[in-house]
Amino acid sequence: MLQSRRKSISVDVWGVIVWGDNTVVIQSMTNTPTRDTQATTDQIIELADAGSQIVRITINDDASAEAVPEIFALMKKRGCSVPIVGDFHYNGHILLEKYPQMAKLIAKYRINPGNVGKGERQDENFFKIIDCAIKYNKPVRIGVNGGSLDEELLSKNMDENSKLTEPLSAEEVYVNTMVESGVISAQKAVERWLPKEKIIISVKLSHLQSMVDAYQKISGLCEYPLHLGLTEAGGNMKGIVSSSAALAILLQQGIGDTIRVSLTPEIWSPRSKEVEVCKNLLQSLWLKSFSPQVVSCPGCGRTSSDKFQFLAKYIEDQIKKHLPKWKQKYTGFEDIHIAVMGCIVNGIGEARNADIGIFIPGDFENPTLQIYVKWERYMEIKSKTIGEVGKIFFKEIETYLDTNFQK
Amino acid sequence: MLQSRRKSISVDVWGVIVWGDNTVVIQSMTNTPTRDTQATTDQIIELADAGSQIVRITINDDASAEAVPEIFALMKKRGCSVPIVGDFHYNGHILLEKYPQMAKLIAKYRINPGNVGKGERQDENFFKIIDCAIKYNKPVRIGVNGGSLDEELLSKNMDENSKLTEPLSAEEVYVNTMVESGVISAQKAVERWLPKEKIIISVKLSHLQSMVDAYQKISGLCEYPLHLGLTEAGGNMKGIVSSSAALAILLQQGIGDTIRVSLTPEIWSPRSKEVEVCKNLLQSLWLKSFSPQVVSCPGCGRTSSDKFQFLAKYIEDQIKKHLPKWKQKYTGFEDIHIAVMGCIVNGIGEARNADIGIFIPGDFENPTLQIYVKWERYMEIKSKTIGEVGKIFFKEIETYLDTNFQK
Repeated sequence: MLQSRRKSISVDVWGVIVWGDNTVVIQSMTNTPTRDTQATTDQIIELADAGSQIVRITINDDASAEAVPEIFALMKKRGCSVPIVGDFHYNGHILLEKYPQMAKLIAKYRINPGNVGKGERQDENFFKIIDCAIKYNKPVRIGVNGGSLDEELLSKNMDENSKLTEPLSAEEVYVNTMVESGVISAQKAVERWLPKEKIIISVKLSHLQSMVDAYQKISGLCEYPLHLGLTEAGGNMKGIVSSSAALAILLQQGIGDTIRVSLTPEIWSPRSKEVEVCKNLLQSLWLKSFSPQVVSCPGCGRTSSDKFQFLAKYIEDQIKKHLPKWKQKYTGFEDIHIAVMGCIVNGIGEARNADIGIFIPGDFENPTLQIYVKWERYMEIKSKTIGEVGKIFFKEIETYLDTNFQK
Repeated sequence: MLQSRRKSISVDVWGVIVWGDNTVVIQSMTNTPTRDTQATTDQIIELADAGSQIVRITINDDASAEAVPEIFALMKKRGCSVPIVGDFHYNGHILLEKYPQMAKLIAKYRINPGNVGKGERQDENFFKIIDCAIKYNKPVRIGVNGGSLDEELLSKNMDENSKLTEPLSAEEVYVNTMVESGVISAQKAVERWLPKEKIIISVKLSHLQSMVDAYQKISGLCEYPLHLGLTEAGGNMKGIVSSSAALAILLQQGIGDTIRVSLTPEIWSPRSKEVEVCKNLLQSLWLKSFSPQVVSCPGCGRTSSDKFQFLAKYIEDQIKKHLPKWKQKYTGFEDIHIAVMGCIVNGIGEARNADIGIFIPGDFENPTLQIYVKWERYMEIKSKTIGEVGKIFFKEIETYLDTNFQK
């Protein structure tokens, strides 16, 4: 059963409330060079349009810090007001002090405690960023990452562990150090007088089970909202499967307040694929609804006709196309289920259980298509081409929306 | 944390032990007409080669029942011995009695208690199938499905529920009826003297949360192995995300002994995509290893060069290509991690944490590529094209395998 969300402090990221409104916030990150203001703005808008509620950009040098005001101007011109997060590594303390306009514009600072500096410099640089956050009233994300974990803390913990009579595995020490790095950094920020409602934490790792362990541990040790992500998840199917699995396990346990899915982009594939994965995941977990869902069967030897595949694809495409118009016209329709089924075995049942459903008999069954609306047989279609059936069924979907969800 | 597997009876499906060997068994189903013996055999072999340990075919009429011996002959000729399951609905009792050769050849019978017949016929037909299973010493799957749930049982339960002072939701009654249908059917089979080690149960539903509830409930009510699946998951991304999420939640809790991912096939996309999802899922959960995994980063504005995307793709393609050869030559290499990282932020860390890893500096960082093997810097590569780098790194991967995993 879906567990109720872990209680957390609410953090306001430029109007997007992480935790407070009790829905999981989707975010993503650009992969354009930030100094290329046009390409970066284009990608920010692509991600925001796809449903990313927060977008992160890298700010790694003078050119990218200088580019921020122009990116904001271009976004404004195009009517985009998604909160922008600056991703800082190594030199965040320098850039935030040197470019106050940038520091004022961006909505959140991401700090990686593993690479703010070594030795005495670590606290010094960390506090410089925290001081900027206080000065400009910005939230931060303490973004611990398995690929850049605080070296000194890890060595110390590994050494101490090796002296134990029953030492933990290296993997466990690693996970514990991730958690410790996150908790200690947040504590230091608070001691420096950053308000608690300005802190979000993440402890991303690339191994699913370690990542799940890290988030489970930290969820019990602090009251900050958690940003979930499986880092370096890899490309396409592997990335989608492992990220969905990792986030689902945690979200089902009520852990996770904002999510990002990191996919190694397939060349020429849109960056917004990351956001599509997030939306599909939250909707299938019943955490948030974005669009009517098409329930369709995998086909088997019974569905010797492949008509239902074409029909399912057509209906999905039509939904995508009409969604913006529907959002203006209808309210509360996003969680309806539309069934497109290939044969009688589960066809009648699924078509009935859906809000509106159709099933296409296989070749050797009665060649009459049936549409069901809310458990009742609603219409029979005979002697039509699949193109005609698609149009008729889609028209009935719109009629159903008109009848039930008019604003 | 990954919970230990729920204890279950072991079921032998023609040599594939469900539960007993304590790894999750992958299965899939053909969508060719079974009467087309050539196409069906081709697809069975495609699925088996991809890693499906059990393959189900529909046996829905005389032609498909008659086709079974020829399919077995064709499979044998091509050296394929994957266990074949017959999927029966409505007329399984007739076909199994009428075609004894088919009944003897196939490795398991799938029975859907929701469509074996109504009224008195239900038990009569169900027992005919069970009697065949006893006669030919075959296991069965009691495959309850939300799209074809036993009508009479559901109506009875809905009626009773409506009379309660605090009735459950319709969704809960539905889930409870699914579970009841599975448990009662198994009980009836056992009372008919089918041995307990001949029964597998599934309670597939198309809504993730209901499906998770159904499996959690039934896992505590019986000791049979469970076949997991989110039914009618839909096409491509939605199907992959929701199936990965649903199965991950249950597998993480130790529930699930054999899995199938049902995807509505994209037109012209290979059926074996279902199997790929299963393998990626089990490997990311650390339940089973199939192939070395490539850990690669999503890129960001720092990785202004897209070289690492090409390199990650090249290495993944090479692994796929060499895997059959490697399986003959090496042992225990399937769970190594290979990192291909785009910049220095998490690059060094991930490259070190992997068994063998490379990171490519972004445009503005030191243009020396580094290869790490087991936490140690192993090699530096300077002034090479990405094509040359790919070849060098892949050669080092093979050297690493040679050194550590020779049979």
